[in-house]
Amino acid sequence: MTQIDQITTYNSFEQTLNQATWSMNLFSDDSHDQMFDQQNSIVFPHLYQLPHINEVTSVYNNINTSVKSTQDVSSMSASLDPTDWSAARAEAHKMLDVSLHFLENARDRPAWIPIPTDVRHRLLHENLPEHGKPITEVCKDIVDDVLPYSGGNTHPRFWGWVHGSGTVGGVIAEMMTASMNSNVGLCSHSGVLIERQVIEWMRQLFEFPSETAGGLIVSGTSMAAVICLAVARYNALNKVRQEGLVKLSVQLVAYASTQTHVCIVKALELLGLGTQALRLVPVDDQYRMNIQALKNMIEEDRQQGLIPFCIVGNAGTVSTGAFDNLSDLATVAKENNIWFHVDGAFGSFVALDPTRRHLIHGLSEADSLAFDFHKWLHVPYAAGCVLLRQISTLHATFSSPRNYLVSTRRGFASDNPWFCEMGIELSRPCRALKVWFTIKEHGIVRLGQSIAANCNQANYLANLLSKYDFIRVFTPVSLNIVNFRLEPHELNDADPETIDIFNDELVNDLQEQGIAIPSTSRLNDRLHIRICITNHRSTLADFDLFVNAVIHFCQTRIASGNNRIDT
Amino acid sequence: MTQIDQITTYNSFEQTLNQATWSMNLFSDDSHDQMFDQQNSIVFPHLYQLPHINEVTSVYNNINTSVKSTQDVSSMSASLDPTDWSAARAEAHKMLDVSLHFLENARDRPAWIPIPTDVRHRLLHENLPEHGKPITEVCKDIVDDVLPYSGGNTHPRFWGWVHGSGTVGGVIAEMMTASMNSNVGLCSHSGVLIERQVIEWMRQLFEFPSETAGGLIVSGTSMAAVICLAVARYNALNKVRQEGLVKLSVQLVAYASTQTHVCIVKALELLGLGTQALRLVPVDDQYRMNIQALKNMIEEDRQQGLIPFCIVGNAGTVSTGAFDNLSDLATVAKENNIWFHVDGAFGSFVALDPTRRHLIHGLSEADSLAFDFHKWLHVPYAAGCVLLRQISTLHATFSSPRNYLVSTRRGFASDNPWFCEMGIELSRPCRALKVWFTIKEHGIVRLGQSIAANCNQANYLANLLSKYDFIRVFTPVSLNIVNFRLEPHELNDADPETIDIFNDELVNDLQEQGIAIPSTSRLNDRLHIRICITNHRSTLADFDLFVNAVIHFCQTRIASGNNRIDT
Repeated sequence: MTQIDQITTYNSFEQTLNQATWSMNLFSDDSHDQMFDQQNSIVFPHLYQLPHINEVTSVYNNINTSVKSTQDVSSMSASLDPTDWSAARAEAHKMLDVSLHFLENARDRPAWIPIPTDVRHRLLHENLPEHGKPITEVCKDIVDDVLPYSGGNTHPRFWGWVHGSGTVGGVIAEMMTASMNSNVGLCSHSGVLIERQVIEWMRQLFEFPSETAGGLIVSGTSMAAVICLAVARYNALNKVRQEGLVKLSVQLVAYASTQTHVCIVKALELLGLGTQALRLVPVDDQYRMNIQALKNMIEEDRQQGLIPFCIVGNAGTVSTGAFDNLSDLATVAKENNIWFHVDGAFGSFVALDPTRRHLIHGLSEADSLAFDFHKWLHVPYAAGCVLLRQISTLHATFSSPRNYLVSTRRGFASDNPWFCEMGIELSRPCRALKVWFTIKEHGIVRLGQSIAANCNQANYLANLLSKYDFIRVFTPVSLNIVNFRLEPHELNDADPETIDIFNDELVNDLQEQGIAIPSTSRLNDRLHIRICITNHRSTLADFDLFVNAVIHFCQTRIASGNNRIDT
Repeated sequence: MTQIDQITTYNSFEQTLNQATWSMNLFSDDSHDQMFDQQNSIVFPHLYQLPHINEVTSVYNNINTSVKSTQDVSSMSASLDPTDWSAARAEAHKMLDVSLHFLENARDRPAWIPIPTDVRHRLLHENLPEHGKPITEVCKDIVDDVLPYSGGNTHPRFWGWVHGSGTVGGVIAEMMTASMNSNVGLCSHSGVLIERQVIEWMRQLFEFPSETAGGLIVSGTSMAAVICLAVARYNALNKVRQEGLVKLSVQLVAYASTQTHVCIVKALELLGLGTQALRLVPVDDQYRMNIQALKNMIEEDRQQGLIPFCIVGNAGTVSTGAFDNLSDLATVAKENNIWFHVDGAFGSFVALDPTRRHLIHGLSEADSLAFDFHKWLHVPYAAGCVLLRQISTLHATFSSPRNYLVSTRRGFASDNPWFCEMGIELSRPCRALKVWFTIKEHGIVRLGQSIAANCNQANYLANLLSKYDFIRVFTPVSLNIVNFRLEPHELNDADPETIDIFNDELVNDLQEQGIAIPSTSRLNDRLHIRICITNHRSTLADFDLFVNAVIHFCQTRIASGNNRIDT
C-alpha cells in the first residue's frame, strides 16, 4: 500500500512553508485574484514534497480550473472577522485588563449590588439589533451594565450556595477554548485527548478500575445524574430482558436518603420513571442514610414485585454536608445486584484532603459517580463529570448510528471512540481544558489544601457564632456548611414564624448592603441562615467581619422595631 | 416600615468608598491583623451612611467580637489567586495575543494536522499533577501541544460538519463570562437578564406570541430536543389523565421524517419512550416530509389505540438541508391536537436571510423550537436554545421544590422565575453573553448576509463540480450542503463499493494534507463527499482551491493505482 506520509509537527509544517520558494497559479480565473488571500498559495507546496505526488504534478496542471462565477461575488462574502484587526486586538486587551482587575479587586466590591432600575431596563428592553455596532461599544455595555451586577460568587464573602469562585487560570483557559472553538463530540483533535486525560486523572483519583472505567465531562452534576441513571436503567432493563420478564410489568425503584439532592428526583422524572420510582430512605442523627432501613425497603419492594435498580449514595449533602456510609451502601448494592450511584457534586473532592478523604471510603466501589469541577475546584462554569466503572455501559446506552457521522480509520474522522456516542450532546464544547489547566496550575495538593481550609473556616465560623447565647448553631457542622438561627431575647415572646422572617430579612439586609451572601435553609421546619463555604478567596477575617455584621443588623432591626415584614 | 436604602449604582458605591475618611477597628483580635486585607475595612463605611443604622452604631461597638482561633491559621488559607498578579497579567495578555493571532491567521494553517505520536503521548499520559507549576508553563503546554491540533473549524476550508467558525467577539465574551463566573440558574444578577433578553430577541425573530412564549438557553439542540420532547410528553400525559385513561395502557408516538436528526431518537430513548415511539414518515423528492403519509400514519396509530403526541418538523436536515413544509405540519398538528416541535438546529437561522426566510414559513406556529447559536451564528461552543409557545409548560415540567433554594421577595435570591426551574441544569453557565455579544456586534442583517453567502457558495461549488463529467453532484442542492461523488472513467469497471472507498480515501487525503475538511455521507446507499458550509471565513477562492485539489488527488490515486484500501 501507498500510505501518504503524515506531517508530524506543526513546526515542521511551518518550516516547510517557509522553505517553499516556488508558487503555483492555482487560479486561472483572474477575477478571483483580488479576493484571494495570497497566503492560500502557501498551503500547497508541502503537498508536493511528498514523492509519489510529485510524479503526477503534470496531470494536475493539465486540469482546467477556469470557472466563471454566475453569481454576484459580493453576495458570497461571509466574513465576521474584524476589518481592523489591530483595533479589535486593542479592545480585547483592554477587556482582559478589565477582567483581571475584576478578579484581583474582588474584595473591594460589595458582595452583590441589586440591579438598578435603569440598568435593568436597558438589559431587558433593547431592540433586536438590526445593524451591528463597534466592538468597543459592545464591550462598554458589558463594563457599564453587566460586570458590576454579576452573580457575586467571585467575592470573598459569597457563601450562599455551592458556587465556585473562578480563577485567573480559568479565564485564560476559557479564552483559549473559545479561540480554538473545538467540538469535542467527535473526530481527532487535541480537545478530545485533553478530555480523555482529565477523565483518566479522575479515574485515578477516585480509584476506579483502570481496565474498564471511563467517563464523560458534562455541564454539571444534574446532567451527570441523568446520564448515570439512564445507564442504570439500561442495565436493569437488560437484566429483565435476559430473565424473560414481561416488559409491561416492570416497575423500577431507586433508593436515596431523605437528604438527597433534587437532581435525582428530576432525573427519574425525565427518564420517565416518575417520582414514584424514588424511595426516600430515613437518615441517622448524622444525616447519613440508615442502612438497615434501606435493606428493609429493598426487601419489601422485591416482595411487592418491584425491581430495585439503583442505590444513590451522597458524598456531601447539600443541606449539612453529610456523607452516607458509601462502603456499606456498596455492600448492600453488591449483595442485591443493584446499581450503585454516588452523587458527589461537591463533596467528592474531599478526596484531595488527606484529613477528610476517609469520608468517601467505599466510593471507589460505585458503578457510577457524578461530580462537578465548577464547584470546589473553582473551574469556570460549566464543568461536571460522569465516571463509570464499566465505560462500555455508557456507550451501549447512548450510541446511535448516523450516516453522516462515520468514524474512519484515518483522517480527521478517526480517533474512536467519540464522546458524542457516550452521552446526550452531539456538539460538545471543550469543557476539559479549563479543568486540565486548573489541575496543572495548582496541583491536587494545593487544591486539597484549599478545600481543607474551607472546612476549617466552617468550624471557625461555628465557633465564632457559638459565643452568642441567642444564636443557635445547627449541628453537626460536618464539612463546610454552617446553618444557624438568631433567636434574640427581645423576640422571646414571638412565634417561630416571626423569628423565621426575622432571620430571612437579616439575610436580605446582608445581601442588599453588599456585606456577604448567605442563603437560607429550612431544617427541622425552621428557617436557618446558611453559610456554605466553597470559596478560595475567603479568609478568617471575612468570617469575623460577617459575624460582626450579623450582630449589627440584628441589633438594628431590634432597635427599629422592624422585626417582621410590613409590605 | 423601614426599608434599608439600596445602593443604586456601582459608581456611587465606589464614590462612597472613596469618600470614607474614618475607619473602624472591626477586629479586636490582633492575631488576625496580619492576614486581614486592609481593603476589607472599606466595605463598611457606606453602611454607616444609612441614617437609621448610624443610630445603633454604639450597640454594635459594644458587642464583643474577640474570638481566638483554636486552629492553625495557615490551614485556613484557601486562595488560588496569583501571588504575583503582574506576572499573571502579563501571561494572560501573551495568551490573548496567541489567541487572536490564531484567529487572524486561520488561513495560514493547514485545515487539520494529525496529532503527532509524541504530542499524543504527552496529552494522554501525564501523571496526575500533585504539585502545580507556574501559569507560564501551563500556557506553554497549550501553545505547544493543544492549539496546533485543535479541531480545525476555525479554518476557512472546514466544511465537514455543521460547526461554527468562532469570532473575536466570541473570545472576548467568553473571557468576560469566565471572569464573572455567574451561575444563571438562580438569583438576581445581570447574567439572568442577558439570557432573558436573548430569549426575547429569539421570540421576536421567530414570531412566537409575546404574551405566552419564552425559552431557555441550553448547551445545544440535542439537549433542547430532550427538553422539548419532555414538555410534549408532560402535556400529552396531562391530557390522558384528564381524560381518565388507565395509565399502563398509554403508548405515546411521535412522527418525524426519515431525514430527521438522530437527536430525536436519542431524546425519545432517554425519556423512556423508546425507539418504538418514533414513526419515520417518508419524504418527497425534495426530502420533505410527505404530509399525506403523515396523516395516514396518525390515523392508523389512533385506530390501534396508540396516542400520537408529537410531530417533529425539520428546518434544515443534516444530510441535504431540506425544510419540511412547516405550515402544513402545523395544520396537521392543530387538527389532531398534537404537539408540534421544530428541529431547526442550524436551518432556523435562514430567518435572518430575506431571500430564504420563506423556507421556515409556519415555524411560528410551532409549540416548541430547538436551535443552536454555535452553528450558523458562530457563537463559541456551546449555546443552543429552546423556544416554547407556552413557557408555563416548561416550568410545569421541570420545576421542583428545594428547601435551600427558596426565591425571595428582595435580596440576592429574588428575580423570579429562575431558569433552574425550567430545565435540567441547576448550576448553569452564562451561555447568553456570547450570543448577546455576537448579535450586538454584527446585527442580524450582517449575520443573515453571512448565512446567505454560505448558501450562495454551495451553489457556486456545485457549479464548479458539475463541469466535470465524472463528478456526480447529488441534487437538490437546497441550502448550504453539497454532496457529490467522483466516478472516474478509469474505474468504470469497478464495483460501487470500490468507488465508495475511492471517495472515502480522497476525503482522508484532503484532510491529512491539511487542504480542507469535507466529511462523507451515505445517500441512496452510496458514499458521497459532503461539503456543509457554515463558515464565515470561506471565500470563493477556497472552493476553487478545493475543487482543484479534489481533481488532483483523484488523478494521483488513479495514476498510482492506489484506488482501494490495502491494509
